[in-house]
Amino acid sequence: MNFKNIGIVGKSGEQAQNTLNVLIEYLGKRGTNVCIEKKTSDNLNNSRIPVLDKSTLCADSDLIIVVGGDGTLLGTAREAVHHDTPVLGINLGRLGFLVDISPDDMHNSLDQVFNGNYGTDKRSLLEVSFDDDSQYHVAFNDIVLHKWNTARLIEFETFINHQFVDRQRSDGLIISTPTGSTAYALSGGGPLIHPALDAIALVPICPHTLSNRPIVIDAASKIEIRVCEHTPQDHLRITCDGQNSLPIKNTQSSILIQKHDKQVRLIHPPGHDHFQILRNKLGWGKHHTN
Amino acid sequence: MNFKNIGIVGKSGEQAQNTLNVLIEYLGKRGTNVCIEKKTSDNLNNSRIPVLDKSTLCADSDLIIVVGGDGTLLGTAREAVHHDTPVLGINLGRLGFLVDISPDDMHNSLDQVFNGNYGTDKRSLLEVSFDDDSQYHVAFNDIVLHKWNTARLIEFETFINHQFVDRQRSDGLIISTPTGSTAYALSGGGPLIHPALDAIALVPICPHTLSNRPIVIDAASKIEIRVCEHTPQDHLRITCDGQNSLPIKNTQSSILIQKHDKQVRLIHPPGHDHFQILRNKLGWGKHHTN
Amino acid sequence: MNFKNIGIVGKSGEQAQNTLNVLIEYLGKRGTNVCIEKKTSDNLNNSRIPVLDKSTLCADSDLIIVVGGDGTLLGTAREAVHHDTPVLGINLGRLGFLVDISPDDMHNSLDQVFNGNYGTDKRSLLEVSFDDDSQYHVAFNDIVLHKWNTARLIEFETFINHQFVDRQRSDGLIISTPTGSTAYALSGGGPLIHPALDAIALVPICPHTLSNRPIVIDAASKIEIRVCEHTPQDHLRITCDGQNSLPIKNTQSSILIQKHDKQVRLIHPPGHDHFQILRNKLGWGKHHTN
Amino acid sequence: MNFKNIGIVGKSGEQAQNTLNVLIEYLGKRGTNVCIEKKTSDNLNNSRIPVLDKSTLCADSDLIIVVGGDGTLLGTAREAVHHDTPVLGINLGRLGFLVDISPDDMHNSLDQVFNGNYGTDKRSLLEVSFDDDSQYHVAFNDIVLHKWNTARLIEFETFINHQFVDRQRSDGLIISTPTGSTAYALSGGGPLIHPALDAIALVPICPHTLSNRPIVIDAASKIEIRVCEHTPQDHLRITCDGQNSLPIKNTQSSILIQKHDKQVRLIHPPGHDHFQILRNKLGWGKHHTN
Repeated sequence: MNFKNIGIVGKSGEQAQNTLNVLIEYLGKRGTNVCIEKKTSDNLNNSRIPVLDKSTLCADSDLIIVVGGDGTLLGTAREAVHHDTPVLGINLGRLGFLVDISPDDMHNSLDQVFNGNYGTDKRSLLEVSFDDDSQYHVAFNDIVLHKWNTARLIEFETFINHQFVDRQRSDGLIISTPTGSTAYALSGGGPLIHPALDAIALVPICPHTLSNRPIVIDAASKIEIRVCEHTPQDHLRITCDGQNSLPIKNTQSSILIQKHDKQVRLIHPPGHDHFQILRNKLGWGKHHTN
Repeated sequence: MNFKNIGIVGKSGEQAQNTLNVLIEYLGKRGTNVCIEKKTSDNLNNSRIPVLDKSTLCADSDLIIVVGGDGTLLGTAREAVHHDTPVLGINLGRLGFLVDISPDDMHNSLDQVFNGNYGTDKRSLLEVSFDDDSQYHVAFNDIVLHKWNTARLIEFETFINHQFVDRQRSDGLIISTPTGSTAYALSGGGPLIHPALDAIALVPICPHTLSNRPIVIDAASKIEIRVCEHTPQDHLRITCDGQNSLPIKNTQSSILIQKHDKQVRLIHPPGHDHFQILRNKLGWGKHHTN
Repeated sequence: MNFKNIGIVGKSGEQAQNTLNVLIEYLGKRGTNVCIEKKTSDNLNNSRIPVLDKSTLCADSDLIIVVGGDGTLLGTAREAVHHDTPVLGINLGRLGFLVDISPDDMHNSLDQVFNGNYGTDKRSLLEVSFDDDSQYHVAFNDIVLHKWNTARLIEFETFINHQFVDRQRSDGLIISTPTGSTAYALSGGGPLIHPALDAIALVPICPHTLSNRPIVIDAASKIEIRVCEHTPQDHLRITCDGQNSLPIKNTQSSILIQKHDKQVRLIHPPGHDHFQILRNKLGWGKHHTN
Repeated sequence: MNFKNIGIVGKSGEQAQNTLNVLIEYLGKRGTNVCIEKKTSDNLNNSRIPVLDKSTLCADSDLIIVVGGDGTLLGTAREAVHHDTPVLGINLGRLGFLVDISPDDMHNSLDQVFNGNYGTDKRSLLEVSFDDDSQYHVAFNDIVLHKWNTARLIEFETFINHQFVDRQRSDGLIISTPTGSTAYALSGGGPLIHPALDAIALVPICPHTLSNRPIVIDAASKIEIRVCEHTPQDHLRITCDGQNSLPIKNTQSSILIQKHDKQVRLIHPPGHDHFQILRNKLGWGKHHTN
């Protein structure tokens, strides 16, 4: 694919500004059409680049380049996926699980990507809805049911493909994509899941019963959570990627979670190595002979 | 499928004898052809039933009925899979993850199975070989590389599809099927994996590095383990299902692990419910209001 | 010690009423002076027993008898400790870690206790205060700093005896007594601590850094927590025993936690066995040959 | 205390030789009497320094200086404790939990120590014996009961102060000092225990029952382990600090573990900070404002 129309989304802050300016200069020299997301533009003070809101930017671009941390990319990817626009992440000097190009390698990496020498890494998302409401929300890392505004445990029942799994008392439940398995789910005791595995993890948060261990299921599964009647609705909440927080309007209605039908396409320069990123980020033994 | 030729394998011990005798009487009344595995026969003292070694029994039967615990079924299933013969498990009063028919329900459950009213639950196996040897060994639960005859850690490198994962110092590594995720891998901190998910878990045993967490990968992956040169070959061993123990002849040769190309077919009476077994065996909260 | 003036505190609900009535009848026959806590009295409808608020009840009694679950005993013990009044717990048919007398054994157990045949089990408490405020709050199980009203991690620094321990991003921190080590701290991955060990456990809740493991320290230690400046004060809260929730008025002020100078005295009938309670509550292997 | 007679123990290998030579030169200039342990001497090729076996060296020195890793110090400390000789550890460029002086800081640190400006850090040890044998063995980190030469679980009963704790099936049990809580016990899921807390941790290795969690008890406790009769004696072994491995001669005899009556005295230069070492070794967040 040939990337002509580039959309830029950046984190606020001085470090991002420097990298954004270098990036914009680079893209100018390459002769691509560049647009920039509104908030990023506000921070940048560069009046010559057209400004679009995030949704239009994602709709009108061939490629979205994100400059920031994993959090910046998560928020952008949730929008880009609706327009099937691929996303590439440049970090701000600190490698992320998702933003894997460092500013120092930016020129070289982008040269390769624009010359068509890149890999496409498809990642699944989750969507959550309530059974009395047609709206849904998507998440790239995880959808989390968690206690809110209370020190007490919440209690809920989980069903997978209409089969009862268990009734659990805990601080909540993390439902994670493979991408999210290196994020909150990992802190909660979940396993690492390779992005190529089409799976969903259910990771209980501080469960009262010690044998309530993380469960990994097929990504085609439909997950349903029913909050137990004695748990007040304002004592729990649903959060997408730790960024969007949804109140529960009615504890009578079930919470439905399933794989989203579209995938995010992450663009990586050649040589992208998932395990190398894990070794770096998790501090694993790196040496390998031969 | 119509089960006419039934092979029986049982655990030794008095309790199994009672159940075996009831089973044999039942099968006699149903008019099926019954053969019995040699060791089971030795314990049973019933001279009227033809005796076969386990391999021939699995080859010549339409269905193998195992009477015992999960361990008895594991050993039989590893043989039955070579002949594509389905397996049904009757426990000895204590529910297993695999032997899910209790002696009390035996008549009713078998009636349904023989009337064609049953489910088939296909389970994947793993196989392990050495790269300088054409022999391989299969495992239903797990293949474990573990320290042997030493108090020290072992050190090894793991590769997945020829990609380097890490160099690890630990007591060993559990490579588990979804079936094995409720066995040793669970004790080692691994997640529960639903049997319908085509996945393999790699669970490090007491790793020196705390971030060496369990990894779940696609079951199509080829896993290669290279023991580090300074680890003496008699300080580690490969074990299949905790039952077959293979010495490492040469630490220079890689250990190769992948999904076996045949699947075990477990026969369950109607109403088999994987999560109900988990709830029972793991003591999860069982109550669910409707 | 001779118990003459008995205070009663009970859980609401029908099951407690039955046990309370049996208890009151028993105490009447023994000729003890009985008073009852106000809320318990409201539920009970027994006009012949003097009613006191919890604080006066604890001040005026030689022994407080709690009828309910561990939660009921926790709340009562926090009050009783101020008056150095011992506490005895009767459960409602389901063994607790603290309420260890079952209604069926009540007569026999109380006979022994009133005949002077009992053990005294001293348990430490924690107290929490803010460095700009002279007030403090006590906890029997745990003092928990946790995120509140937010899906984001909180960030804070911990000091022990003025020594910097670490700067942590997590959902919070559980500071637990040995008594609390079987409660929330256990769900968070903390160890079991024997009540005879004078120790405090610090258990991080879903820490971002995987090596942020539970720490056990001497109970004489002074713990100080400083919330990092960018964490808004309404995004975290302090909770005592999961029952009393304290807002943070000023994130500039340190949170100080230390052992309370008084101990709760739990009264047990003879034969009280801490490990038997653990085996029962945690479902450990119970058989032991002799 | 004035250190005049210095004993040196070093790891083999070229890096240790360089540091040893610098150390010997330093000690010569200071005018101390220096002796060297036999094996260390063999590796060093310095004929002018008197050579003693480790036991005599520990008996005749005022201070033992260890050059190597934590493992080298562990082995030396187990000997030094018998003679109440303090131990100081110099690492080989990689900080250990115990060997906390780096070669670069050696001159400055030793200057301070020899000028009397040092701290003494007393650490407890454990001892293990069999009830039919008067011999005992000491451990600085941990005494581990573990499976040996088998892929199967071992089964054993634990008693604390003659009270039955549980009957457990697992890969073994780690009994750890606070010092050992950063070693194998940590890999097994145990908590960090501050060295100033007089405690012992019991950490089950891959227990079959998920609720078999680590237990922390008072260091004055007597621990007894009885191996269950059906576990063959050559299927398990006792190991001290992962270095000394003791066969079980008779599974009928109990294994007795308790705190050793002498303590190792570790000498640290001023500014020794236990939590700083934890932050360094475990990669904790280090930043702390103010």
